[in-house]
Amino acid sequence: MPPVVILVRPQLGENIGAVARAMANFGLTELRLVAPRDGWPNPRALEVSSGAGHIVEAASVYPDFNSATADLQLLYATTARPRDMEKRVLTPRQAAEDSPPHTSLSPEGRGGSKIGLVFGPERTGLENSEIAASDVIITIPTSGEHSSLNLAQSVVVVGYEWWSAQARRLTDDSGQMTNASPSSSDLATKADWQSLFTQLESYLDDTNYYRVDHKKPIMWQNLQTMLQRGLWSEQELRSFRGMLRAIWEREKKNR
Amino acid sequence: MPPVVILVRPQLGENIGAVARAMANFGLTELRLVAPRDGWPNPRALEVSSGAGHIVEAASVYPDFNSATADLQLLYATTARPRDMEKRVLTPRQAAEDSPPHTSLSPEGRGGSKIGLVFGPERTGLENSEIAASDVIITIPTSGEHSSLNLAQSVVVVGYEWWSAQARRLTDDSGQMTNASPSSSDLATKADWQSLFTQLESYLDDTNYYRVDHKKPIMWQNLQTMLQRGLWSEQELRSFRGMLRAIWEREKKNR
Repeated sequence: MPPVVILVRPQLGENIGAVARAMANFGLTELRLVAPRDGWPNPRALEVSSGAGHIVEAASVYPDFNSATADLQLLYATTARPRDMEKRVLTPRQAAEDSPPHTSLSPEGRGGSKIGLVFGPERTGLENSEIAASDVIITIPTSGEHSSLNLAQSVVVVGYEWWSAQARRLTDDSGQMTNASPSSSDLATKADWQSLFTQLESYLDDTNYYRVDHKKPIMWQNLQTMLQRGLWSEQELRSFRGMLRAIWEREKKNR
Repeated sequence: MPPVVILVRPQLGENIGAVARAMANFGLTELRLVAPRDGWPNPRALEVSSGAGHIVEAASVYPDFNSATADLQLLYATTARPRDMEKRVLTPRQAAEDSPPHTSLSPEGRGGSKIGLVFGPERTGLENSEIAASDVIITIPTSGEHSSLNLAQSVVVVGYEWWSAQARRLTDDSGQMTNASPSSSDLATKADWQSLFTQLESYLDDTNYYRVDHKKPIMWQNLQTMLQRGLWSEQELRSFRGMLRAIWEREKKNR
């Protein structure tokens, strides 16, 4: 199943249409929009989409980031500015080649994890909380201090790399998958992670873990980042939640 | 010297401006226009160029293909449709990696051959004679029968590959831009992990997490495995221990 493209708070309909067009060129079919500024449907998107009208018409709209990503297992956030977060930062090529080989982009691709490619609003980019919720950061190498690649051009580059990596996999089949992580289809979904984070946050709010309140945002973000880095399976995530609950409840064994 | 970008009979000023913008992102500086349809200068080009105005303003205009390419040594013609010609057809990546290493894209690059990247008009593409005059054909791999990548998007992809190849040459071969996880010198030691495990084990032994005693060995092993998979830094591991302790102790915030 090809990765899903998620545009977070996109502004111009033209850009949404241009993104759809880029997607069609590189075998991407599912488009999700988080709170598009000018509402939806947007006639400008269809006008610009040029042969990718089916993608625009099938786009689904979500009120917020979490609902748009709940069923996905791996999120790649594209941002020009690497934030100060302990996260993997990859080039588009590394991201495409790093992805599990059985996460096929071809229609024949079977199984594999559900991947989301996340792009922020035209001017401001993604919020830190959205980057923190993602597993990997993609940064497109550009010449200047500040990249002026626009939204659709970023999708062009990332889509091009996904498609190229897929094309290479189909030709020379050296598909070895030798990491120690759970097989991709078992990875926890973002909804699973959200449940864990909700549980953990409620526990921590009730302790003095943060010591001072103003440190909470950064400490909380760091915790989310480091926990997600392990790429846990749904089963592992459940074990972890059980562990937290057990400690929280401190039930004595033989009571 | 970076390759020269040559737009043959471009139609819309907007597209010329968008090409300039793409060029600036990827370290390309010299733009040549062969017989632009709407004349030159074209105010729309400048409007769209967004920070690449210097490239638009320095663009030079030529009456025909031959005069625009006379001083160049190698021409790479980008076309979506491979023509029936006995010519090398490369992907953008192959073209970028195939190019002589001393054809540096950096300002410090010395010598090397003068390369031209040739792009045809928006609708019709290059004429056969122009392709014949080129040394190499670049075809961008896309999903459909007919690519609908527009002019500037094609420049984005080709420019991105040139820039990436150059960046890889400059760094080392690994092309690692930034960190994956914490830099390896910051990683927690195994002693740190053992301290965490001792703490966690003592907590869990005091709860009914394992439910039945004979399950403890496997559950405990799984927990250790999944926690270590995140490759935490010493600092992150300390944060995690603090979190566990806070939950264990359940100190009320304002007590």
